[in-house]
Amino acid sequence: MVEKNRLPRELTHPVSVGGVIMGGGAPVSVQSMCTTDTADADATLAQIGRLAAAGCEIIRVAVPSAAVLDGFERVCAESPLPVVADIHFDHRLAIEACRRGASALRVNPGNIGSWERVDAVIDEAGAAGIPIRIGVNAGSLDAAFAEREDLTQVEKLVGSASSFVEHFRTRGFNDIVLSAKAHGVLTTIEVNRALSRELPDVPLHVGVTEAGTARQGTVKNAAAVGALLMEGIGDTMRLSLTADPVEEVDVAWDLLSAVGLRRLRPELVSCPTCGRCQWDLMGVAAEVERRLSSVRAPITVAVMGCVVNGPGEAAGADIGLAGGRGQALLFAGGSPLRKVSEADAVDELFAEIERRFG
Amino acid sequence: MVEKNRLPRELTHPVSVGGVIMGGGAPVSVQSMCTTDTADADATLAQIGRLAAAGCEIIRVAVPSAAVLDGFERVCAESPLPVVADIHFDHRLAIEACRRGASALRVNPGNIGSWERVDAVIDEAGAAGIPIRIGVNAGSLDAAFAEREDLTQVEKLVGSASSFVEHFRTRGFNDIVLSAKAHGVLTTIEVNRALSRELPDVPLHVGVTEAGTARQGTVKNAAAVGALLMEGIGDTMRLSLTADPVEEVDVAWDLLSAVGLRRLRPELVSCPTCGRCQWDLMGVAAEVERRLSSVRAPITVAVMGCVVNGPGEAAGADIGLAGGRGQALLFAGGSPLRKVSEADAVDELFAEIERRFG
Repeated sequence: MVEKNRLPRELTHPVSVGGVIMGGGAPVSVQSMCTTDTADADATLAQIGRLAAAGCEIIRVAVPSAAVLDGFERVCAESPLPVVADIHFDHRLAIEACRRGASALRVNPGNIGSWERVDAVIDEAGAAGIPIRIGVNAGSLDAAFAEREDLTQVEKLVGSASSFVEHFRTRGFNDIVLSAKAHGVLTTIEVNRALSRELPDVPLHVGVTEAGTARQGTVKNAAAVGALLMEGIGDTMRLSLTADPVEEVDVAWDLLSAVGLRRLRPELVSCPTCGRCQWDLMGVAAEVERRLSSVRAPITVAVMGCVVNGPGEAAGADIGLAGGRGQALLFAGGSPLRKVSEADAVDELFAEIERRFG
Repeated sequence: MVEKNRLPRELTHPVSVGGVIMGGGAPVSVQSMCTTDTADADATLAQIGRLAAAGCEIIRVAVPSAAVLDGFERVCAESPLPVVADIHFDHRLAIEACRRGASALRVNPGNIGSWERVDAVIDEAGAAGIPIRIGVNAGSLDAAFAEREDLTQVEKLVGSASSFVEHFRTRGFNDIVLSAKAHGVLTTIEVNRALSRELPDVPLHVGVTEAGTARQGTVKNAAAVGALLMEGIGDTMRLSLTADPVEEVDVAWDLLSAVGLRRLRPELVSCPTCGRCQWDLMGVAAEVERRLSSVRAPITVAVMGCVVNGPGEAAGADIGLAGGRGQALLFAGGSPLRKVSEADAVDELFAEIERRFG
């Protein structure tokens, strides 16, 4: 299934953002966006450091005015991740960002003001040898489409995106990544399916925009982007949440792992507790999750509450604990290893993980 | 799209669990399971009360031994929600649960021990006039399928489930709901697609089992159950999380809302902050989310960070705030209402919500 689903991505023209490839069958990459003031290079670099440690692969920063350009230049020079400049309205900022070290631009041609200004940005990015993400949003469509009452929202988004891509190509610029974002799950899926069908060679940047706070935003992004990834649609992703951007990266990796595409960290399988449970499953699972965050082996770890589901369902995990009254059974590779006391269970689990997968 | 997607559910034979209908085109219902000791009726009823307030529609409790039966009986008598008895291994407990007031049973015929015992449970449920959920888990398959090396995991789950359903029907029992759970997203989707195809008239209870702690479990459930619901598969859901079960109910409702099937509460649209943001968006969004939890009108509320996305993208919301420097713009129905100070913004928003939708 995964093999079949990978096909659409292999059809896309590969684009390099500071060495991270999007499209052409490359792994789906994880992006986020800084919430700091770009003028404050120290704060921005500190946040990028935390994001890189969490598994972020490309970072976007806002370039809202000329006042942030010096900070932006230092961020580009010192960032461990490729930096994408996020530009709205002012084409001069886009041009300046190319000169200050951006690894890519993100612009919405619909709010740059004129084709002449868009062309000036295209030419400067071409001279700098960096790609452009064309970002279309439901709230800022190409004027030729925004007012058309005969078109659905999806048709407007796809029409805007297609006309922008055609313009860039006519200008001789091909290093394009495309995003068309909406805050609804169904619209997000429909518009990306349509783009994948109509522009099969353009890598797609996917995600739900303004998805909301952590829980609701996680639900929307997992439902929409999960469905797309399982159809093979999407070459890079930014799952926007109104939360610490590290949370966006964690959710993105959880999703890539859940749909079987990429695994960065261990996966934790744990049952909900129920009236049968005789040990502190929730406390143990939280502690195991916390300690797993520093483990990089892509293993599956199970923490099970009882004898009903534990031994049978933990068998598929690389290693696991199944709890009982005051003690737990330590498993690995489908076989019981030994009984351990409840108090020592987590330490014993991590000692065994270190021994086997460290 | 939603209309088309609803079709598979309309083909299923409707089953009533204490008045909540599953299948036959009924709305997809939300279930959870108590984490309390069923013998402690006070604690169990208190948890059920919190779950009902959050929007839970059916509650399951464990019946692991005869010692909990008195508690179970009191829970059934006093619960505001229909109570499903979760039974493993001991058919006598299932029979007793029918007599003590269960609105349904959840059993896995594969761990009841013999067909004679299963038949005794079927007959008792028939006499009590209550349905049975046949719950098949990867970890506890029908013995005839578990050892078959020629079958995939999905084929084993579907084969077990189908043979159980056939047995129940041969016994003259038709009030069946079926679940076949796995902890992987791809397996969950594949097995439910296969069940929907092969047993199109049996309502399906969907969810990812042992999905993990809140974040990872939310991602897995939203991706798997979201994909199924968008295909019209699934008549009732329990999204298992290693967390407070209220969280399961919140995630379930977020998902039903995200895929456009049911809306219980307001939806919050909020952008991630970025370097352009000039007000405390994250704080405001969190405060708005907190205060929205007591609003029952199914409206869409936007909290936007800046002029770039705010006015345009908040236009689709029923009401919203777009922040600026020290003040915010209050919107409703696509039109600006008035500027408000940042300090008063949330109060003004809720006063307007009360006026318009209260």
